[in-house]
Amino acid sequence: MRAAAFPLSVNAIARDVEAGRAGPWDAARQALDAIARLDGGIRAWTHVLGADALAGLDAAAHRSGPLAGVPVGIKDVMDVAGMPTGHGAALPAQQARFDACCVAMLRAAGAVPIGKTVTAEFAFRSPGPTRNPHAPEHTPGGSSSGSAAAVAAGMVPAALGTQTGGSMIRPAAFCGVVGFKPSFDRVFRDGMKLTCESLDTIGWYTNSIDDARCLADVLLNDAAPRQPAGRPLLIAVQDCNPEASACGHSQAELARACARLRAAGMQCERVGMEPETARLLQAHAVIMHYEFARSLAPVVARSAEALSPALRQAVAHGLAIGAPQYRDMRALQAALRHGWDRLYGGADLVLTFSTPGPAPHGLRHTGSAAFNKIWSVLGWPCLHLPTARTPAGLPLGLQLVAGWGHDHALLAHGRRLHHLLTQEGE
Amino acid sequence: MRAAAFPLSVNAIARDVEAGRAGPWDAARQALDAIARLDGGIRAWTHVLGADALAGLDAAAHRSGPLAGVPVGIKDVMDVAGMPTGHGAALPAQQARFDACCVAMLRAAGAVPIGKTVTAEFAFRSPGPTRNPHAPEHTPGGSSSGSAAAVAAGMVPAALGTQTGGSMIRPAAFCGVVGFKPSFDRVFRDGMKLTCESLDTIGWYTNSIDDARCLADVLLNDAAPRQPAGRPLLIAVQDCNPEASACGHSQAELARACARLRAAGMQCERVGMEPETARLLQAHAVIMHYEFARSLAPVVARSAEALSPALRQAVAHGLAIGAPQYRDMRALQAALRHGWDRLYGGADLVLTFSTPGPAPHGLRHTGSAAFNKIWSVLGWPCLHLPTARTPAGLPLGLQLVAGWGHDHALLAHGRRLHHLLTQEGE
Repeated sequence: MRAAAFPLSVNAIARDVEAGRAGPWDAARQALDAIARLDGGIRAWTHVLGADALAGLDAAAHRSGPLAGVPVGIKDVMDVAGMPTGHGAALPAQQARFDACCVAMLRAAGAVPIGKTVTAEFAFRSPGPTRNPHAPEHTPGGSSSGSAAAVAAGMVPAALGTQTGGSMIRPAAFCGVVGFKPSFDRVFRDGMKLTCESLDTIGWYTNSIDDARCLADVLLNDAAPRQPAGRPLLIAVQDCNPEASACGHSQAELARACARLRAAGMQCERVGMEPETARLLQAHAVIMHYEFARSLAPVVARSAEALSPALRQAVAHGLAIGAPQYRDMRALQAALRHGWDRLYGGADLVLTFSTPGPAPHGLRHTGSAAFNKIWSVLGWPCLHLPTARTPAGLPLGLQLVAGWGHDHALLAHGRRLHHLLTQEGE
Repeated sequence: MRAAAFPLSVNAIARDVEAGRAGPWDAARQALDAIARLDGGIRAWTHVLGADALAGLDAAAHRSGPLAGVPVGIKDVMDVAGMPTGHGAALPAQQARFDACCVAMLRAAGAVPIGKTVTAEFAFRSPGPTRNPHAPEHTPGGSSSGSAAAVAAGMVPAALGTQTGGSMIRPAAFCGVVGFKPSFDRVFRDGMKLTCESLDTIGWYTNSIDDARCLADVLLNDAAPRQPAGRPLLIAVQDCNPEASACGHSQAELARACARLRAAGMQCERVGMEPETARLLQAHAVIMHYEFARSLAPVVARSAEALSPALRQAVAHGLAIGAPQYRDMRALQAALRHGWDRLYGGADLVLTFSTPGPAPHGLRHTGSAAFNKIWSVLGWPCLHLPTARTPAGLPLGLQLVAGWGHDHALLAHGRRLHHLLTQEGE
């Protein structure tokens, strides 16, 4: 099985609609057709706009704007007006009255939110029914499973997800799409459940970095403009992690990437992991569980029976973490958020694994977030570049990371690197 | 008219309940009786727990904990399970399925959320029907009008509010109660509408600073422990503000306070306002309008007719603010958040006005936030101390401010200062 991307880029859709070469619903109809055709086997969606509802939207509002007519999937932890919000939980979904802030920003730019995508239960660990479009017996990753799979299967050109641990980058890696997690605090979160207030970050999946940049121009509220380096890029290559080792496929892909980048004149320098960086893994675990428990405790109090045992255990575990430990870990997080120079001084980017390997077999676990937690707790922007396939056809790729607020630089460098890493021949 | 405080302190209620000297609902029944008796003239509440609903609560859960049996009012921008959330807007209120995170934390500590209090429309400017308990033709301040008035009128011993500009401290000053706005990012916000994600802060009203500390111990997730200074307190007295001047009553009260504090051995040094501090007023205006507009745009898109003209104008104004200007002001905010030493180096606290004067006459405006915006944009903790009355009986008081994260120090110093400023005789 080979999934094919949505046939049009974000930019192409918007240009065609703005020029009158296509109607504002054409791409949305194409997306709904693709969903009707493909989603039985993939199950990426919990709700899609009916043809009647589509016809009922205000066409004028979608005829212009940088995302005019672009159909977008929305992870089912964020509200879309008139659609049910379910959080991937066994609770009755609630009809949203208003769009989440980010959904309204997409809509104001001309995009058409066409449906809600499957999430792990409350964006945590227990997966929904989504399958990997490249291998139906393998996990698509989580928690933004549906959004990544929907883009990978060509059902939409773009979809929103969120990351608290590895929930954006891991599904991007397993499904073989571009995944962009912006800097923390750079996309407004009103209209989504804050499960971990100091970690939750909205991001998006696309087929290309150009498409990711189109959404970034609309959704990022505050990122530093890019400063050209004026010298060859210096890339810190971090291939070690105290929680996981990458498989042979991933190691080989990283080596191939470094060779290519060096051949293009860039410097790739392997860096070890500072002990304080490694401590961020612990910080992530403490902060995530502490906050998640306090956010989900109200749900446990009223509807425990509807929640998975794993979620209830996580809440019990998190409630037992003391405030002093949480405070210490928040202090470490705050101290290192602006610590790029201290940790990676001189480098422009970090190149590392997105996941320990390709999507594991099985649908009951969403895979390891070992290579994601450090950047999640730091709030640094991350970009997954899909670059290759295993002999069995599973997607492989690599992760690029930049310092806090350097989102536009990351996307610009990422575009160049992605091109270098995916062009044919040496 | 003289409003009387709730007859029991937070601590006394919890001690009595834990010791079995009072039942877990006794104080809540007392609160509901007071509301039934007084709220017709004050209109602080949008919804209160019925006697049946109170009887239906799980008594065991409220028999222990630091807030056992303490009735609390919740500003109607935060969810309380089973109660309608209305945001002070002319929209159908929605029944909340789950408690907001902070409400659940209060409940887990034994408190009884007994109802929802009036807020200005979406915590912005258009006031609700609440009257000032000390003078019914004067504003109670806003946006947390109902919570401040409910505590001032003795209907509850504690109530939650929020501050984005001056929405906690101003109603505290006008209603003559203790108001505490913690450091930004120190009380979890899941379950409330984020109207301004980088400003919105949950706080509380009480009759005493001891009571405020009882709630702080439950709700503050991450504040530095207090470091004793080991020397006389040094207080920076900031009495100037480029946007407003304080009236004679307030000026006299500040002078009286400084004399008292000096007599008690503290140092009070008048400080001017640095130009960059004054620029924070502009930063607040830009950030608040930019964020508010993007949070409320989805509501304007679906229900513009239900919103006040003032709110719609604010949204239009905010949507017109460009991202570069917002980015610059966020950068200033971030740079100065940790800038206590630079702005007030050596001082332990800032002492300043809470408002330009006592509650103005009239119910159509909630008063000036000129003395609040700087601290709101910095995210520094603020404490209103009610210290005196005008000859006409309107509450007067002063504001104490500490550096970001020094919430416990602020409360501890504030307790001592409040005692000094309110004890009889010189």
